[in-house]
Amino acid sequence: MKNVKLIIEYDGTNFSGWQMQPNARTVQEEIEKGLKKIIKKEVKINGSGRTDAGVHALGQVANFKETFSIPIQKIPLALNAMIPEDISIKEAIEVPENFHARYHAKGKRYIYKIYNGQLRSALLKNHAYFTSYTLNVEKMKKATAYFIGEHDFKAFMASRTSIKNTVRTIQDIRLYEQEELLILDIKGNGFLYNMVRIMTGTLVDIGRGRIDEKDLPNIIKSCSRESAGHTAPPQGLYLAEVYY
Amino acid sequence: MKNVKLIIEYDGTNFSGWQMQPNARTVQEEIEKGLKKIIKKEVKINGSGRTDAGVHALGQVANFKETFSIPIQKIPLALNAMIPEDISIKEAIEVPENFHARYHAKGKRYIYKIYNGQLRSALLKNHAYFTSYTLNVEKMKKATAYFIGEHDFKAFMASRTSIKNTVRTIQDIRLYEQEELLILDIKGNGFLYNMVRIMTGTLVDIGRGRIDEKDLPNIIKSCSRESAGHTAPPQGLYLAEVYY
Repeated sequence: MKNVKLIIEYDGTNFSGWQMQPNARTVQEEIEKGLKKIIKKEVKINGSGRTDAGVHALGQVANFKETFSIPIQKIPLALNAMIPEDISIKEAIEVPENFHARYHAKGKRYIYKIYNGQLRSALLKNHAYFTSYTLNVEKMKKATAYFIGEHDFKAFMASRTSIKNTVRTIQDIRLYEQEELLILDIKGNGFLYNMVRIMTGTLVDIGRGRIDEKDLPNIIKSCSRESAGHTAPPQGLYLAEVYY
Repeated sequence: MKNVKLIIEYDGTNFSGWQMQPNARTVQEEIEKGLKKIIKKEVKINGSGRTDAGVHALGQVANFKETFSIPIQKIPLALNAMIPEDISIKEAIEVPENFHARYHAKGKRYIYKIYNGQLRSALLKNHAYFTSYTLNVEKMKKATAYFIGEHDFKAFMASRTSIKNTVRTIQDIRLYEQEELLILDIKGNGFLYNMVRIMTGTLVDIGRGRIDEKDLPNIIKSCSRESAGHTAPPQGLYLAEVYY
């Protein structure tokens, strides 16, 4: 029995997210169907975590345990031939027997892309968040510093979620301009449901002057979803890396 | 009666190209339907030229002549609200009465994006040409120089096309790497049908060693489609600018 770690890229546009669910096209299901074709067995894969409908991944991680004859290094090409083109298996490596993509994840890196122009971009429609508000990028950059470190991020969690421990550590956060895009690059030991999208929405609200960047520490302390900004839409979000 | 020049971005993925045709979704038709809604008249727009199914545009140009009351500078936002999100009108300006987007075009600039990796990219599936062959980029760069200037480009025209004058001038051509992409940026006074895609395919064939870059002048001189390389697929091609 081998334990295999997969690194997976996908375009979330036409998926109802990562996780298997009835009557919905999901990334997990497509990969499991593909694995069945190449190793002739029903395989269940463990993802590092869910992604929502429309959210993309550059480096989602999943693992599965099974006995099979195909050499591991041939899995990416063989599996890609069996799954839709909006998924690409970028790497497959053997890992120790006890490795679990979700339980052993030590951190994640996300990227969020904002297209800030006067008129929408047709080409970025499914791959960035378009906003035509004039954004004060310097204020947004300053504000990112308040997120660094260990905080209770309850104010940045979708309100319908129930979870006990809402303390997370943001290890690194960068906001930079790249051609016509504004890119948020954020690394942490874990993220609450919708956390990156609410952090991004709050930064956009700061950029357009609806929230004062100096209020951000109080918003964090409030632990109240209502005090934070809006939830930025899914299509700008990319799960970039999972750390172990 | 005003003559209006539109600058148009579109994602060609879900279009059967630019030009109106029966039973097909085309960019021209969507824009004409949108114009009818905002100016309450049947309007025919003249594009600078066709683009094929799957080909994108950053700066397609079209014009139309009509009498209407909406201020011209409000057309992009008003029209974008009426047309699908995979098209975006980026600019609308009034031009002299005799301006015609096709007849008066003095040149065009195209961009072609190649994704050269060992495994395909899910996110670039509809927006770049994936090839896993090892490419000698230096040879490809050297080869581009042979295209510069005035040549009979008949060898780089889809063979089913009939056209008398196949002489065109390439004014500028650059091949460069940008992150994981190899980008061809090419400017000329005009392009034959499939010309950029055949030039790109020939450069890829040079990069992978199927064609010797020193043979390129002879391939051009041959005026024979068979001697040039393959036709690169539509999804890597972007009409970037039209010059007047």
